[in-house]
Amino acid sequence: MLIALFPGDGIGPEIVDQAKRVLDALAIDGLTYEHGLVGGAAYKAVGHPLPPETLEIAKRADAILFGAVGDPDCDALERHLRPEQAILGLRKELGLFSNLRPAKVFPELAGESALKPEVAGAIDLLIVRETNGDVYFGEKGFRTTADGQREGYDVMSYNEGEVRRIAHAGFQAARARRGKLCSVDKANVLETSQLWRDVVIEVSADYPDVALSHMYVDNAAMQLVRNPGQFDVIVTGNLFGDILSDQASMCVGSIGMLASATLNGSGQGLYEPIHGSAPDIAGTGKANPLATVLSAAMLLRYSLGMADQADRIERAVAKALANGARSPDLGGTMNTVQMGDAVLAAL
Amino acid sequence: MLIALFPGDGIGPEIVDQAKRVLDALAIDGLTYEHGLVGGAAYKAVGHPLPPETLEIAKRADAILFGAVGDPDCDALERHLRPEQAILGLRKELGLFSNLRPAKVFPELAGESALKPEVAGAIDLLIVRETNGDVYFGEKGFRTTADGQREGYDVMSYNEGEVRRIAHAGFQAARARRGKLCSVDKANVLETSQLWRDVVIEVSADYPDVALSHMYVDNAAMQLVRNPGQFDVIVTGNLFGDILSDQASMCVGSIGMLASATLNGSGQGLYEPIHGSAPDIAGTGKANPLATVLSAAMLLRYSLGMADQADRIERAVAKALANGARSPDLGGTMNTVQMGDAVLAAL
Ligand SMILES: CC(C)[C@H](C(=O)O)[C@@H](O)C(=O)O
Ligand SMILES: CC(C)[C@H](C(=O)O)[C@@H](O)C(=O)O
Repeated sequence: MLIALFPGDGIGPEIVDQAKRVLDALAIDGLTYEHGLVGGAAYKAVGHPLPPETLEIAKRADAILFGAVGDPDCDALERHLRPEQAILGLRKELGLFSNLRPAKVFPELAGESALKPEVAGAIDLLIVRETNGDVYFGEKGFRTTADGQREGYDVMSYNEGEVRRIAHAGFQAARARRGKLCSVDKANVLETSQLWRDVVIEVSADYPDVALSHMYVDNAAMQLVRNPGQFDVIVTGNLFGDILSDQASMCVGSIGMLASATLNGSGQGLYEPIHGSAPDIAGTGKANPLATVLSAAMLLRYSLGMADQADRIERAVAKALANGARSPDLGGTMNTVQMGDAVLAAL
Repeated sequence: MLIALFPGDGIGPEIVDQAKRVLDALAIDGLTYEHGLVGGAAYKAVGHPLPPETLEIAKRADAILFGAVGDPDCDALERHLRPEQAILGLRKELGLFSNLRPAKVFPELAGESALKPEVAGAIDLLIVRETNGDVYFGEKGFRTTADGQREGYDVMSYNEGEVRRIAHAGFQAARARRGKLCSVDKANVLETSQLWRDVVIEVSADYPDVALSHMYVDNAAMQLVRNPGQFDVIVTGNLFGDILSDQASMCVGSIGMLASATLNGSGQGLYEPIHGSAPDIAGTGKANPLATVLSAAMLLRYSLGMADQADRIERAVAKALANGARSPDLGGTMNTVQMGDAVLAAL
């Protein structure tokens, strides 16, 4: 089975290295790896953030372990050359439409959140975000208004097939957890949301065992602060999911601990930490590799069907934390490699 | 000077009553009032959430004191008949494009927030939200895709004139506060945001004394949890402003305390509490009227040019709180009228 390693920019290479060490330590038969260039690193090397060779590796791979993209040197480039296009392009080209972002507080780290410990400690939710449609991928551009003004525009849309497949992903995730699904939209203003809500309700007929609720996105942003413990699974569109999943991560506090998966319909997936490329600390050894290690666990679980091996990694991370492993973002002094060592020791 | 009183649904009438008592107590010469029906109340009485008579009063008024709209009985109506259309319609018909939402913690209430008291206590920010454009008012509807699927769509757009006037509002507000303006967009994905960012930068040339920064909306949602004290003024579009301003309100904790103003270019304004119509507690006396009382203070300040009278109300509210006035949402037992009494006693 082929795992594509796309480290990307900033701290990307350092954290992917540690995740690779953990995968190696599991000594799983038949895993092979190929490296690919993405993001600013790819632009600087070959002039494009998602070069054809990289895309070709991605298509052949069973799963992609992704570091992070984002490089201040590339800020002034045209949009289609910026590092972010690597992640948007991979999502679209591989049909990776279902972005899963679990947010849960490790008991040892409940104090890290800006939320009161009793509020943060109750967080155990999963955001299922659609990542192939919405205002991200609609027609967009600049035009001139009738009275000669510059105008920017982007078309938001969802069709029923797009909503149906992500709704199924949401219901299935809820069924495997606590059986509660909250669909987030802005149906009081947007027709895209009205279609979304209608289709989610249609799909709910297949899941009588799941309790479905609906919430407007502004209210969801409030409830994620007031009482995030009320949520089990949240399913939402690309734009609202972008905002709410980052908000939920920060509610947990330790953003260096959070992993994500983005899946298509045939088991292929892209796995990445939810934090960014952190160019300010790249090369200093301050990066916490645990979110990437936990992303590797998700990779084993979702794309390779190796739940046992995934469990082993997750238990090792929990044990390393319990043993006191702390990188600077968690208030400690251990460097990136030492954090990797701590997980290996706990394996 | 004419003040339109639009109490609306749920707790709307109860809280507007108390704000009116406070205005009366100031004994300001030359104030007149007219009542208008809005929201579900208007739909039930005359078949439309924003009847022509109400709109006509609004246009003649110097300012509108608005309660809240939202009525579960109206959930199944077609969109154009739902209570929310009253507020959207007033914003559009009167050109009320600049929605100001201050979020600040009253020291006595810092413990109410789900955030740690030291994080919540540092909040003193103002969100300036555009409310006449964006995906709210673009072309929208349902269509059929080439392969016969239902699709919902909504066009997001901003032109340079729309961005320029709200940018000026943001810079001017920042100049009158701590001189920091953060413009929030999603320019890494949206052309609407790219135009927004370009125009904000152009306008910044007129405000060399204001420190301008830019932040992506997903990061802003994180920063509002992690460290909301970093913000002075945030300027953003209609959709992002809807989400972030509700999130910021909840960071403050006591949502029953937060007022808002929405202004047009000629000093007219609509003033309302940021909380909703709370149909579950309507008629029980549990509603906290202070957000509406503080909205009346904003009305005096922004539309009637009576900063001294506004200060009097704000000081009276602070004093009432210091004296221990607490409605149920603030952990107390005082009813709506008693909360009004407490402000009158402090005046
Ligand atoms: C980098 C950016 C385009 C991307 C997005 O908005 O989807 C990121 O914020 C994310 O959430 O993965
Ligand atoms: C009721 C709704 C249409 C409205 C909005 O989205 O603008 C509300 O949420 C607000 O923020 O005033």
